[in-house]
Amino acid sequence: MKQGKVSNNVIRRLPRYLRKLDELTESGVGRISSFELGQQLGLTPSQIRQDFSNFGEFGQQGYGYNVEALRAQIAGILGMDRGFRAILIGVGNIGHALMDNFSFTEWGVELSAAFDVKESLIGSEFNGVPIYSEDSLEDYLNTHDIQIAVLAVPKTVALAVTEKLIRNGIEAIWNFTNIELTEPNSTTIVENVHFSDSLLALSYYVAERQDERGQKA
Amino acid sequence: MKQGKVSNNVIRRLPRYLRKLDELTESGVGRISSFELGQQLGLTPSQIRQDFSNFGEFGQQGYGYNVEALRAQIAGILGMDRGFRAILIGVGNIGHALMDNFSFTEWGVELSAAFDVKESLIGSEFNGVPIYSEDSLEDYLNTHDIQIAVLAVPKTVALAVTEKLIRNGIEAIWNFTNIELTEPNSTTIVENVHFSDSLLALSYYVAERQDERGQKA
Repeated sequence: MKQGKVSNNVIRRLPRYLRKLDELTESGVGRISSFELGQQLGLTPSQIRQDFSNFGEFGQQGYGYNVEALRAQIAGILGMDRGFRAILIGVGNIGHALMDNFSFTEWGVELSAAFDVKESLIGSEFNGVPIYSEDSLEDYLNTHDIQIAVLAVPKTVALAVTEKLIRNGIEAIWNFTNIELTEPNSTTIVENVHFSDSLLALSYYVAERQDERGQKA
Repeated sequence: MKQGKVSNNVIRRLPRYLRKLDELTESGVGRISSFELGQQLGLTPSQIRQDFSNFGEFGQQGYGYNVEALRAQIAGILGMDRGFRAILIGVGNIGHALMDNFSFTEWGVELSAAFDVKESLIGSEFNGVPIYSEDSLEDYLNTHDIQIAVLAVPKTVALAVTEKLIRNGIEAIWNFTNIELTEPNSTTIVENVHFSDSLLALSYYVAERQDERGQKA
């Protein structure tokens, strides 16, 4: 279905399309034009058509998109139907928050296990996910088919844990530590979660609003 | 300094430039060409020059950018020197994680206070930030100069708290609840933090890698 390498900017927009389509489904909308979809997402219709054209034919000229079908196509492109499995390393505040509030399955990912060094956590379960000792991490990786490691350990041990994960052939690291893991080698995919990027964008818009008010005054 | 409305995509790249420039400073790099900067960020030199051209003159043709000066300019554009103040509402897992690990001041924002409904938290302090009863939220907003509300409350109360914030004139909401707050009115800026966007991009790249392997096999 896919034609060559797709730009990172397009990939980053796909989850936004997905969320919007879910919203539309919830409000009972079954079909939407690229114009209307663009309006709701702050994109031009031509950008939307261009984005989708990276992945083949979507919708029918003049008829708009079938919301359900488009949603399924995007979910497929995003690998949500591949049955990816993840483990969580570090059950501190962020780790707990993810286990508690973040629905991995909603995004097609199964959270299989969590790992920590804290005796009081080891052997327990949280929302059905077992928490094991970090000592058993390598064994676990070698005996289970895991694609994604969610890294939520303290900064001080982030690099050591990362090395262990790579040594054991993990495919991808979803990195919640504040340490930027630049792709450590060509075979591990790293996604750094930077809260600051989001705060700074917000800050920009507040500053912009201040300037606008200043100009008006 | 700024010339007209700048596209959201450009704004989203600014924090990435900032992080890269901080990294360069740490490694003792004082000057960098747009070519080299582009290489390190996966952008073309012309895209970089175009991004910066939105905000006036940056660097000198043929000499590249002075890392420190460019960093200061971008920080200014992002409003990091405006002295914005934030409050946190909800000191659960995510709220705790933010208070514990996220350095607001590093990004030019002061976290002034936190609010919760839990008796055991009210009246305490965490990393120097006082935690007050949510009952006093409106009073606090009316007597302090606060621009940003960090929303980390349970889903069930997210909308009610948001209404309260808007009613009391908050400028911006940094939304960590899983509820998408579409800009509720024209005067409140909302930044939704969607962990799923990041996980799905990761998932895409794992799927892409699988497909490449499949083609090779």
